[in-house]
Amino acid sequence: MGIRVGWRSRFILALSVGVFAGSTPSVAQGNVVKYQGTIHNVKYVYATAEPVARLKPGDILDTNTLDCFGDAIRKPGDTLSMAPGDNPLTGPFYVEGAEPGDTLAVKILSLEVNGDQGVGALGPGFGALNATNYTPMLHAPLPEKIWFYPIDHATNTATFKALDSKFEVKIPVHPFFGCIGVAPAGGEARSSIVPAEFGGNMDAPEASVGNTVYFPVNVKGGLLYLGDGHAAMGDGEVAGAAIEVPLRARVQVDVIKGHKINWPRFENDTAIMAVGAYRPVDDALRIAFTELVGWIQEDYGLSQLDAYELLGKVARIRLAEMVDPNYVVVASIEKKYLPAKKK
Amino acid sequence: MGIRVGWRSRFILALSVGVFAGSTPSVAQGNVVKYQGTIHNVKYVYATAEPVARLKPGDILDTNTLDCFGDAIRKPGDTLSMAPGDNPLTGPFYVEGAEPGDTLAVKILSLEVNGDQGVGALGPGFGALNATNYTPMLHAPLPEKIWFYPIDHATNTATFKALDSKFEVKIPVHPFFGCIGVAPAGGEARSSIVPAEFGGNMDAPEASVGNTVYFPVNVKGGLLYLGDGHAAMGDGEVAGAAIEVPLRARVQVDVIKGHKINWPRFENDTAIMAVGAYRPVDDALRIAFTELVGWIQEDYGLSQLDAYELLGKVARIRLAEMVDPNYVVVASIEKKYLPAKKK
Amino acid sequence: MGIRVGWRSRFILALSVGVFAGSTPSVAQGNVVKYQGTIHNVKYVYATAEPVARLKPGDILDTNTLDCFGDAIRKPGDTLSMAPGDNPLTGPFYVEGAEPGDTLAVKILSLEVNGDQGVGALGPGFGALNATNYTPMLHAPLPEKIWFYPIDHATNTATFKALDSKFEVKIPVHPFFGCIGVAPAGGEARSSIVPAEFGGNMDAPEASVGNTVYFPVNVKGGLLYLGDGHAAMGDGEVAGAAIEVPLRARVQVDVIKGHKINWPRFENDTAIMAVGAYRPVDDALRIAFTELVGWIQEDYGLSQLDAYELLGKVARIRLAEMVDPNYVVVASIEKKYLPAKKK
Amino acid sequence: MGIRVGWRSRFILALSVGVFAGSTPSVAQGNVVKYQGTIHNVKYVYATAEPVARLKPGDILDTNTLDCFGDAIRKPGDTLSMAPGDNPLTGPFYVEGAEPGDTLAVKILSLEVNGDQGVGALGPGFGALNATNYTPMLHAPLPEKIWFYPIDHATNTATFKALDSKFEVKIPVHPFFGCIGVAPAGGEARSSIVPAEFGGNMDAPEASVGNTVYFPVNVKGGLLYLGDGHAAMGDGEVAGAAIEVPLRARVQVDVIKGHKINWPRFENDTAIMAVGAYRPVDDALRIAFTELVGWIQEDYGLSQLDAYELLGKVARIRLAEMVDPNYVVVASIEKKYLPAKKK
Repeated sequence: MGIRVGWRSRFILALSVGVFAGSTPSVAQGNVVKYQGTIHNVKYVYATAEPVARLKPGDILDTNTLDCFGDAIRKPGDTLSMAPGDNPLTGPFYVEGAEPGDTLAVKILSLEVNGDQGVGALGPGFGALNATNYTPMLHAPLPEKIWFYPIDHATNTATFKALDSKFEVKIPVHPFFGCIGVAPAGGEARSSIVPAEFGGNMDAPEASVGNTVYFPVNVKGGLLYLGDGHAAMGDGEVAGAAIEVPLRARVQVDVIKGHKINWPRFENDTAIMAVGAYRPVDDALRIAFTELVGWIQEDYGLSQLDAYELLGKVARIRLAEMVDPNYVVVASIEKKYLPAKKK
Repeated sequence: MGIRVGWRSRFILALSVGVFAGSTPSVAQGNVVKYQGTIHNVKYVYATAEPVARLKPGDILDTNTLDCFGDAIRKPGDTLSMAPGDNPLTGPFYVEGAEPGDTLAVKILSLEVNGDQGVGALGPGFGALNATNYTPMLHAPLPEKIWFYPIDHATNTATFKALDSKFEVKIPVHPFFGCIGVAPAGGEARSSIVPAEFGGNMDAPEASVGNTVYFPVNVKGGLLYLGDGHAAMGDGEVAGAAIEVPLRARVQVDVIKGHKINWPRFENDTAIMAVGAYRPVDDALRIAFTELVGWIQEDYGLSQLDAYELLGKVARIRLAEMVDPNYVVVASIEKKYLPAKKK
Repeated sequence: MGIRVGWRSRFILALSVGVFAGSTPSVAQGNVVKYQGTIHNVKYVYATAEPVARLKPGDILDTNTLDCFGDAIRKPGDTLSMAPGDNPLTGPFYVEGAEPGDTLAVKILSLEVNGDQGVGALGPGFGALNATNYTPMLHAPLPEKIWFYPIDHATNTATFKALDSKFEVKIPVHPFFGCIGVAPAGGEARSSIVPAEFGGNMDAPEASVGNTVYFPVNVKGGLLYLGDGHAAMGDGEVAGAAIEVPLRARVQVDVIKGHKINWPRFENDTAIMAVGAYRPVDDALRIAFTELVGWIQEDYGLSQLDAYELLGKVARIRLAEMVDPNYVVVASIEKKYLPAKKK
Repeated sequence: MGIRVGWRSRFILALSVGVFAGSTPSVAQGNVVKYQGTIHNVKYVYATAEPVARLKPGDILDTNTLDCFGDAIRKPGDTLSMAPGDNPLTGPFYVEGAEPGDTLAVKILSLEVNGDQGVGALGPGFGALNATNYTPMLHAPLPEKIWFYPIDHATNTATFKALDSKFEVKIPVHPFFGCIGVAPAGGEARSSIVPAEFGGNMDAPEASVGNTVYFPVNVKGGLLYLGDGHAAMGDGEVAGAAIEVPLRARVQVDVIKGHKINWPRFENDTAIMAVGAYRPVDDALRIAFTELVGWIQEDYGLSQLDAYELLGKVARIRLAEMVDPNYVVVASIEKKYLPAKKK
């Protein structure tokens, strides 16, 4: 407890976002709260709901998530219809002291694939290159197909095996949360397949070890949800799925009092990253970049137009996914291109 | 000449695109054709026009390009209205033997900033975060602003200098052609600010040393145009301009007979990259990825759905720009994830 | 009660959607259920919530709605910040017998402006021609402005009075519900400013007297919400608001058992109309038209491609609004162009 | 000749756009210039090209257009591949005195279907509900299908005949030019399937008798092109084609000196209509409405925000087509809602 307080104190000196960014691993200490996610306690909406556990700022949550199919697809012949729902979520976790208008910070300390196999699937009506519920067409749908990816923990790779030829190739494992988010504002409840202002199904590889995610706190306790582990994913997640896996995870939470953000953000030692989620991609990009311009103005002191110009020269864009109900863009800038952070 | 023929012969063995990809620098030989671009001989449309020079397959073109403002903006107080036109193009260059249905390959051998200064500009009606001609709004426009970037050739950096504070930061120089393209199909002529099926103002950092660009040949000779040098650019080119510079350039051309592509492509030793250019970004992405799926099917032998699935796991997306009349996405995959190329 | 049953019986003979479409006004009978909406009992989300009243199929609901500002903006000098929330909703109303998989039919019997004044407002961040939350830009926002529209019940007109000149003009009153919808599927709860699969803030002038609206039933009782009365609105609602008014309303409900639809629909004696709600408008249109093609196939027996072709020749499109979180397109065809409805 | 001069004089008094709008049919006089369009003299690009005839302001052009397939599809069994090109254009017609910065006015005096049959076709890769060149997907394309529409001149109807059932229905004939446009600016040449700032393939039913179309003059003589007659078309032209017909046409041209517009406009006695053409539909709408706001400000004297507000209450939107390379929106307001036109 004392350790958590000390860690929190350092944060208070930092006075703003970036709370964990400069902290070394050795200081990531706090009470460890364990919680076991199972198919019987998962949720399918981001909403204001009864918390499954309560955390104090600085606490470390040690938990697990099921894969996006509820761990139901195990072997050739299994079908998508066997999944009890999409993106079952572990949580929600109540963070003490988090109130609307605050920012919730979640530092991802460790993530590992919780099993020996990942799943990729082509679902009719889902994907960037096929007709979907929200971009419907008159074509016959693409067929359902499932690929299994053996995970080799020793080499930290997953193996793609072609269905229509003998080709195989190893893909490095980079685990991240496809879903990480909080209860929405305004009494809304959103499906676990949606990314939006509250985070959610962002499918952003940035939600991985070493990064801190910031969320607007919309309800008391923030109410953190986790799920949809990915062992690896291409930009855009164009076929509609990543290498879908259950995860074991440790994350540390904190609350930045009185600091309001509109959209999720990521940060690590070397970069700041703003999220935009909407359709078309054009608007997701506009959201991410206006947020990033504002962040630079507020925390690093460049004028609005200087920030805009500088981003035109050094920004990086991750088009995280173009397959969910909203599309996700992460706009980032390396800190080396920014002035010192304002105190 | 003999050297060119020899080089060409090796290509014939390769039998497909990827002509230069495996070649070492020492084999990049051929006749060198020199041409000097000036404000008096530049063009402002990609069109079927009188060529300024003729090249044989294997020839190396040694030329230069003016910056996007026609090198007219030199010092504080200069204004955008001083530019005689946008994106003046050097060319067109006729490539012997190139006929409709063929593919033109352009390997970029060297690029260097031709001067000691780059220019960034915020133009009213241009940019991803302001109202534009094609996304008009009722707001008062953002003001015109110009930033000058001193280029240090020794350290290969350009320096951003904030206009509204004293902040300065060095940015690594990575020169590339903002404009590289050929005469369009169907008798069209397109402004030098447009990227489309013929290439053009793609603003893709992939148009740089070490990469080969492929274009569909739409008219006899292909008619290559070059321009709009960038010393560095952020993804999306969100403020509407890169660090705009004149360039000195050497490129080597070749023709792949009887091989038709629909959209520009890039390739190097380690990756294949397909271009999509349209609005919204969603459709640019769909173009780039359907092209990449087709490329993998045709040249690497994966089935369509295996290729789609694999891209969902390992593809990379560059959202090159969201400011020109069409938006540009480059979708790529590293060759290490692909089967051996078909003979 | 007997009358309701009789009316219901006729419906059973009709055997499908279109339940009220052929009924003459004289048969619109049933128990009348009265409910008074006030600022103290309105809701701000479409959700599964405690019903305020229960209706049987055939019942007529006699109720009222507040305007989108909660009737709070009354006179020059009032500001948008005085509104307690956007689009307060009267309801929800539970319809007996409605279960997931059924269709709820709501026939609009009468609508009248409940007062002598309407309100139009230009809100910063809201409108098709200004930067918004989801299409953000760096411009200074347009100013907040409010226009008051006197309603003349004798001539059934509202008067536009220019703020910056002396021009005035009368506009015919055509009252309709901007908001009409049911509880969403999957446990979602959505803000009253959102139009989606469950209807909601569709801002469709089709939600007016003489038309029947069909909704998918997602939860027991359907849970009907009403609000956001409009005295008149231009296509697209481009400035972000209609002539906003409180309404007095009578609607009759019915349940079509075992008939599932995916998106809201409208119908009257002369036309069938399908709704699509998403972004960009392109996708809203695709949704509306694929729904309309399916409707024609299923109920009128044309093949899919014959229906598609015919719509290409005679369809009508209402672009209802391009200002809410999703955009709304209503695609319609006059019944005179269709085969006789299948029994 | 004297008559033309007199007519022109009246225009000079009108001093602005709306040149023909108030004129009665009896004054639509001028020299009649006849020109016969044939498959041997049609064009496939809007471009600066040798005119086929020269007109003076006030002259009436009496000409004809081929259908979008070059009149090549005549009977069951014919295929789309028989068309020598898409949208063959009659013209260009040089209008004396038209110079860049002027506006060309084209009043459509008469249009009649030039034959007894129209053609509708479903082409793979073309249509709002199927994958296209610019919204490509991985689905197998929809099949090519052709419908023939007998034209009954006595009743002025065309008959839809289902291919997969015996259903037939008559559709009223409303002939209009799918293509009407001028040479583009900046030396561009654009395919006859493109709608853009120069007009072109707008597929707007507003291009019909009683309306005047205004175009920006980009090159000397303006260079008017006509083609792609439609006997009838649904909003959105969703299946990719209208009832395609050859036309006989009479149009009268005039030049409004020194008045520059950015996008095409329509006008008749009762309404003003502004065109926007781009992708997504969202941006086409923004173009059309910002143009209409500007038109109202400039010619009718409302302030910008009063005009915006008023359009939010009474504007009408035609989503003309969502199938061509750019999508077309026509935004309009009835003159009865506007102040008197400024002198």
